[in-house]
Amino acid sequence: MKHARISLDGAIHAATEAGPGRIRLADGRELPEDAVAWLPPIEPRTTFTLAINYADHAKELAFKAPEEPLGFLKAANTFIGHRAQTLRPADVAFMHYECELAVVIGKTASKVGRGQAYDYVAGYTVANDYALRDYLENWYRPNLRVKSRDTCTPLGPWLVDRDDVPDPMNLNLRTTVNGVETQRGNTRDMVFDVPALIEYFSSFMTLSPGDLILTGTPDGIVNVQPGDEVVTEIEGIGRLVNTLVPFPS
Amino acid sequence: MKHARISLDGAIHAATEAGPGRIRLADGRELPEDAVAWLPPIEPRTTFTLAINYADHAKELAFKAPEEPLGFLKAANTFIGHRAQTLRPADVAFMHYECELAVVIGKTASKVGRGQAYDYVAGYTVANDYALRDYLENWYRPNLRVKSRDTCTPLGPWLVDRDDVPDPMNLNLRTTVNGVETQRGNTRDMVFDVPALIEYFSSFMTLSPGDLILTGTPDGIVNVQPGDEVVTEIEGIGRLVNTLVPFPS
Repeated sequence: MKHARISLDGAIHAATEAGPGRIRLADGRELPEDAVAWLPPIEPRTTFTLAINYADHAKELAFKAPEEPLGFLKAANTFIGHRAQTLRPADVAFMHYECELAVVIGKTASKVGRGQAYDYVAGYTVANDYALRDYLENWYRPNLRVKSRDTCTPLGPWLVDRDDVPDPMNLNLRTTVNGVETQRGNTRDMVFDVPALIEYFSSFMTLSPGDLILTGTPDGIVNVQPGDEVVTEIEGIGRLVNTLVPFPS
Repeated sequence: MKHARISLDGAIHAATEAGPGRIRLADGRELPEDAVAWLPPIEPRTTFTLAINYADHAKELAFKAPEEPLGFLKAANTFIGHRAQTLRPADVAFMHYECELAVVIGKTASKVGRGQAYDYVAGYTVANDYALRDYLENWYRPNLRVKSRDTCTPLGPWLVDRDDVPDPMNLNLRTTVNGVETQRGNTRDMVFDVPALIEYFSSFMTLSPGDLILTGTPDGIVNVQPGDEVVTEIEGIGRLVNTLVPFPS
């Protein structure tokens, strides 16, 4: 099943998919998907993000692929939902979208082997993990200014139950900017796959329900500008629509 | 006033100080402080940690002092309360305590100048920001394995109201290990002081109530071992007691 959280008439509602372009609220109402404000499908607890987790993207950035997962954390201020607006800072030269498979942890996980890793997954969603490249070369890269800006991590539309995704390691990803395809990849090309990431993080820290892992992006990053509509899409998971607006306005 | 969160008889209670060694629960009961289980005084939302924010500590680590704040984030699994036990991983050679002033944000803060910064502070507590030095030299240092282990960030005992701390930039810090003083410093020696940190972080992201800033540690770090009692103490803020236990046990 596909789950969402939406805001309508001053309240937050749980919702599910009710056919193409329609959603069903927990109270039974059915509505067109553009009649509601979409929130991120979960409120993430700890959010992990992977740097350089597709070999082609490593090459694109002129980095060598890492020998172990390069995980860092994201702050709470950065998440927004489907169809929301992202602030593009005027003082930044390079802002790149990143289409990423996002894994939601469903069960407390400590020292989980890769063979059992999927047992600890609740489901999947789509993340657009915008990066402000200007700041990437700092000493402690990738730092807060690259990856934790307000509104710079659209998430959604749906949390898709784990069992509805038979092979998360064989899903096509694509991004379009104003309708033109600019990024294409497949989750099979991850350097560290989903079981490896769960095994790695849980080897030295305990993961909990609501923790989120953004698994990195393939190559095809492009600088985007205010006014652009950026759609990040993963086969079987969802189509996440985002629009950039200038900041300050 | 000094505020705490404690666990007693299967429930979480708000508490305040009621004279030396005693606490008062919100329901009026007074108890000795060792009759309850202490929790972190807040549940942090986003937690920022500063690397190398005392010049003498930079020298101790053979790093040059940074030209701007070196902020990174901590994960939710790492926090524990006063008098709790920290797991010391057996496969790590160097585990160092770090006594730090922790600043709790009380009001939504965006683009706050240093002259107004204290208006956005709810109060202060003490953090022991343990670091597992073995992993410090990785590419993306300081990384998750250094700073986000389970139980490796004791916090407390008290959240002390901002107005009860007339000059947070002139507080003595000290750490004792098994009663022997091993670290001593003063918050006046921070490279970036509390107003500078709030100005910096809020210049590019929005801070919210419950966000926490750990402001770095002075020199005097020492490797600690299972069985050690580590007390991190800040003048007027609190005396945070922690004991190390072996992990795996």
